[in-house]
Amino acid sequence: MIKIGICGFGYWGPVLYRNFSANPAFDVVAVADRLPERRERAASIKPHLRVYSDAVEMIDHANLDALAISTPVGTHFHLARHALRKGKHVLVEKPLCERAEQADELIELAKRANLALLVDHVFVFHEAVRMIKRLKDQGGLGELSYFDSLRVNLGIFQSDVNVLWDLAPHDFSIVDHLFGEEPTFLEATGYYHVHPGQPDIVYVTAHYRSRMIAHFNLSWMSPVKVRRVAIGGTKQMILWDDLNSEERVKIYNSGIETGPEEQRILYRIGDIFSPRLPSREALANVVEEFQRAIEGDKKSLIDGDAGRRVVRMLEAAQAALDRRFATLASLNAGADAVSF
Amino acid sequence: MIKIGICGFGYWGPVLYRNFSANPAFDVVAVADRLPERRERAASIKPHLRVYSDAVEMIDHANLDALAISTPVGTHFHLARHALRKGKHVLVEKPLCERAEQADELIELAKRANLALLVDHVFVFHEAVRMIKRLKDQGGLGELSYFDSLRVNLGIFQSDVNVLWDLAPHDFSIVDHLFGEEPTFLEATGYYHVHPGQPDIVYVTAHYRSRMIAHFNLSWMSPVKVRRVAIGGTKQMILWDDLNSEERVKIYNSGIETGPEEQRILYRIGDIFSPRLPSREALANVVEEFQRAIEGDKKSLIDGDAGRRVVRMLEAAQAALDRRFATLASLNAGADAVSF
Amino acid sequence: MIKIGICGFGYWGPVLYRNFSANPAFDVVAVADRLPERRERAASIKPHLRVYSDAVEMIDHANLDALAISTPVGTHFHLARHALRKGKHVLVEKPLCERAEQADELIELAKRANLALLVDHVFVFHEAVRMIKRLKDQGGLGELSYFDSLRVNLGIFQSDVNVLWDLAPHDFSIVDHLFGEEPTFLEATGYYHVHPGQPDIVYVTAHYRSRMIAHFNLSWMSPVKVRRVAIGGTKQMILWDDLNSEERVKIYNSGIETGPEEQRILYRIGDIFSPRLPSREALANVVEEFQRAIEGDKKSLIDGDAGRRVVRMLEAAQAALDRRFATLASLNAGADAVSF
Amino acid sequence: MIKIGICGFGYWGPVLYRNFSANPAFDVVAVADRLPERRERAASIKPHLRVYSDAVEMIDHANLDALAISTPVGTHFHLARHALRKGKHVLVEKPLCERAEQADELIELAKRANLALLVDHVFVFHEAVRMIKRLKDQGGLGELSYFDSLRVNLGIFQSDVNVLWDLAPHDFSIVDHLFGEEPTFLEATGYYHVHPGQPDIVYVTAHYRSRMIAHFNLSWMSPVKVRRVAIGGTKQMILWDDLNSEERVKIYNSGIETGPEEQRILYRIGDIFSPRLPSREALANVVEEFQRAIEGDKKSLIDGDAGRRVVRMLEAAQAALDRRFATLASLNAGADAVSF
Repeated sequence: MIKIGICGFGYWGPVLYRNFSANPAFDVVAVADRLPERRERAASIKPHLRVYSDAVEMIDHANLDALAISTPVGTHFHLARHALRKGKHVLVEKPLCERAEQADELIELAKRANLALLVDHVFVFHEAVRMIKRLKDQGGLGELSYFDSLRVNLGIFQSDVNVLWDLAPHDFSIVDHLFGEEPTFLEATGYYHVHPGQPDIVYVTAHYRSRMIAHFNLSWMSPVKVRRVAIGGTKQMILWDDLNSEERVKIYNSGIETGPEEQRILYRIGDIFSPRLPSREALANVVEEFQRAIEGDKKSLIDGDAGRRVVRMLEAAQAALDRRFATLASLNAGADAVSF
Repeated sequence: MIKIGICGFGYWGPVLYRNFSANPAFDVVAVADRLPERRERAASIKPHLRVYSDAVEMIDHANLDALAISTPVGTHFHLARHALRKGKHVLVEKPLCERAEQADELIELAKRANLALLVDHVFVFHEAVRMIKRLKDQGGLGELSYFDSLRVNLGIFQSDVNVLWDLAPHDFSIVDHLFGEEPTFLEATGYYHVHPGQPDIVYVTAHYRSRMIAHFNLSWMSPVKVRRVAIGGTKQMILWDDLNSEERVKIYNSGIETGPEEQRILYRIGDIFSPRLPSREALANVVEEFQRAIEGDKKSLIDGDAGRRVVRMLEAAQAALDRRFATLASLNAGADAVSF
Repeated sequence: MIKIGICGFGYWGPVLYRNFSANPAFDVVAVADRLPERRERAASIKPHLRVYSDAVEMIDHANLDALAISTPVGTHFHLARHALRKGKHVLVEKPLCERAEQADELIELAKRANLALLVDHVFVFHEAVRMIKRLKDQGGLGELSYFDSLRVNLGIFQSDVNVLWDLAPHDFSIVDHLFGEEPTFLEATGYYHVHPGQPDIVYVTAHYRSRMIAHFNLSWMSPVKVRRVAIGGTKQMILWDDLNSEERVKIYNSGIETGPEEQRILYRIGDIFSPRLPSREALANVVEEFQRAIEGDKKSLIDGDAGRRVVRMLEAAQAALDRRFATLASLNAGADAVSF
Repeated sequence: MIKIGICGFGYWGPVLYRNFSANPAFDVVAVADRLPERRERAASIKPHLRVYSDAVEMIDHANLDALAISTPVGTHFHLARHALRKGKHVLVEKPLCERAEQADELIELAKRANLALLVDHVFVFHEAVRMIKRLKDQGGLGELSYFDSLRVNLGIFQSDVNVLWDLAPHDFSIVDHLFGEEPTFLEATGYYHVHPGQPDIVYVTAHYRSRMIAHFNLSWMSPVKVRRVAIGGTKQMILWDDLNSEERVKIYNSGIETGPEEQRILYRIGDIFSPRLPSREALANVVEEFQRAIEGDKKSLIDGDAGRRVVRMLEAAQAALDRRFATLASLNAGADAVSF
């Protein structure tokens, strides 16, 4: 059994705990959290669990084989680096870290010590994404033209990240996996309404060499929760509504084609097919992937390289956002006249 | 009775015909269209209607008091100018024209001749928008923070406009009316998949001095038709789903507030109220407004000035799109490496 | 061209007019209605139409080949009989008449004179029912086990019929067509809240020899309109929501089976498939069927025999309702104690 | 603290455990179940819990103040009687028992010993029902006219009960609470498709002196799960969709009224209001009610009398079902001809 410790027992830590406990390859032996009430919660779930207030102390002394990190983003790099240096396999909550060079260092450390370094890009192992990827690889979608995500809800405001770093890792990791290429150009804009300078509404647009476009509408200011992804291909189109338990993914046999003469457009509106998806929790698949990586090949769909690509896109989007806010600030400061 | 002629009898012309016919103040006496089958269609509806193949000829000879123009966008300015010069009141399909200076000329002509010049910004008179505007003016929404529109469907591709000029006039006219101020900064991006250079997916983001942000997701490439507008205020939030006939507008008594200490966020998730809206067609209201303008005050929510503001935003968005396509073209031409 | 007259120009008459006009085999030459405003409406649609205040006069003098009857149910038999005696082909609105012996007389008259006698069981030619019937005949549903219909809305209260005679003809005609057998036992119960003795809520249950059961929930007292039919088979199940334009019919690859040992139940929950249905109006198909019947074989899915079977089931349901109301009246009159 | 034991640890037992554990007034000290894997499950949740294979032994020896019974229906009476005789307060899963006289005996026992005897009619304490009852009592619904429940899903087939005894207790207990009167006449019909003689589809109709009618459509044979209750009043109507988490209860300001002259019908279609409901689990309210009953007044909305009324309606419905099956059997045996 792989002895594992969990850093951070807030929202996601208990979910990690449940999934690692359900997998017979793992034995959760320790949990670390700064807050006493969270440590008490962990202790009440499993009496013989060792509980730490300091994550570094747990890494150093809890006799672990592996570590799962679900602490605030700003601590990911330091904890992961320390754990890798101490010879522990590491699964990090998304995003892997804050900067690409940090990712480089973690990847290098893991490689040298032959340790598993995975990021919890949980949607890559979500049954809906798996099905869509399979369909795409089999040619069922034709050429992809767009990925359009509406990922909004009311809050939850977090102290350590803005809405981009909270929600965009999901979409970036899905698009990275589905498209299999990196964007050539990346835009981001948005605004803040609660904390000055901390955007709570962000729009990201990514352009790809092969005529694809990806767009994410991310918000903490929506009265209703929506998780809606539309994916367009020349052969079929997909609507994935993650909150619709009956028809989570709908495949539309619809499309638009240009006829022999350029100007003629052919519309095809056809049947709708909604495949039954396995009800397996995506995180259970991630836990299995972690086991496989620990025991064998360190290459994975959610390895350090994947984590680095997502961090790189987040950095680019944040830089675009910063430029936009600077522009808006100078406009508001200066101009009485409308500027466009 | 106001004798009116209709230019263009394709998709919208017959709808104008039906609404003008239903209003006792108007008498539709003539229709002009280049295509014989459309003229036949018009003639079959009303036997004594005078039918013209040339709009200018109709304006010159049909003894009209007023003209409704529902021809392709590229012809709006010339037809409207000719009609105003001939002393006819004019209602133009959205958008008013293609460039702001054209709008200036039309406004000036109408003013000098004391003629009505209205644009068919039909959503300004839509019962949902009227209700939302009333609620906003009464303070029921608090301070507005965002307007987020998802306006997508499959096609219909048009020869004369791209998806921006087809769909954005709706959102620009609604936002112009609701917000009551012009954006300070306007962005647009997107891509094309059917006709090279003619975008079929466009994302528009408009920034406002008063911390508001507007975003439109416009597409002709969606397998399903969606008309969904979310509007956020500090007191209440709104979801307007124009395809949901039972609950077209839902008012959420929900919001996010900062507590006395800046860091404390208060969530309020409350009741949902869906007011019964009058079932009146918005265009019937526009026709009435046209009558009022002809008979009295030329100032209107949908007058030439409103038309000009929308054209100006369309021009700015188109310019932003053009810049984006130039950037993408140069990237694709040059770079092997990812550029962001 | 078949010269046809329409009796009754209230709600359904104009719909018949539109569909007969769109079919080149028919020429609508006359319309009869008692109310002057309806006659005016008919005259305004087609200037050269002959308009009658008395249906019998129209039948006698309008030089018709065929007649469509959309008057109140109580007049169906007399008008149809008169028309058949005068040698006219007849299409009668559902239900065909009020009593089975009336149906017998009409069938006999039509047979002797070799005239077409069809009933407008419009759902038999509805694209959803056609698709379901085809699937059933091909064995795709397995053995049918139930038909469950929820057909409710607010009103419209009619002077001549109760909710049973208004809505049940639809379900009876669909079940008659799909099941291909008559019930062995038929129950009906319900109650009235607006007009004493005129039920506005009725529940019908029909039992069939082959283990099938059909149930209709019919109401004029629902705040929302629902048209929801569930059909269960051993292989697949169907949900037909006639108000869901995107997925009108959903085929669930789900079922319940008993395993080899009687006590073991196997659940199968599979994919959902929603076929694209032709958008053709069902009444257009009925009009074509009427043409076929006039020109050739008088046997049809909606002929007098089908009409008679539906009337017979309506009579049985009405008799059951009458018995129930008698029981309730005697209970309420007599008993202080609860009686069950 | 009230020391409580739980009999039966299958599906509902763990839910009872969770709710009693969350209430500081109770201490769950023992669990009984015949199956070893369930006892293990209980033991793993709380190490110091006393676990019994025999419920009677637990009642006799576990030093309990109170007992919660969530065993198969056939055992409710015997276990409850034994517990009451031993001086334990008792909460029984719905339905209380199988026959009204059993209920009488339990009520008498509890009364004599001044013990609490409650039935887990959990929907009576559901926030939706509480809200509807409050609205009704305040006159907001006007006079009630109907209760219409669609409660269907795929399975789960149970060895000890048919679909009537599984699902109807919910609707009977809700109607009993809302209407506040017993039906004067009760009908039930249905059919079986999996286990001979064990109905998997049942339709219940209950008639009330005050012009109300209640109808339940209960099925284990539906491809989709539906929990939809419509309630009609002269002033407002309600739609309660328990699976719609956003708008669980919608109040329609709609109705039908007769005007001054009997024949004139007035329709009122108004706003829709969906109140925010507390997210509290209904069972937590039941546990609190049990505490109140133990500590004070034994009279409760879910006391033995309420349990008895529900059992009596279940018995009447089962008797009606039995009569119906006898009729169908004799028809199928004898008649070749259709019998109605």
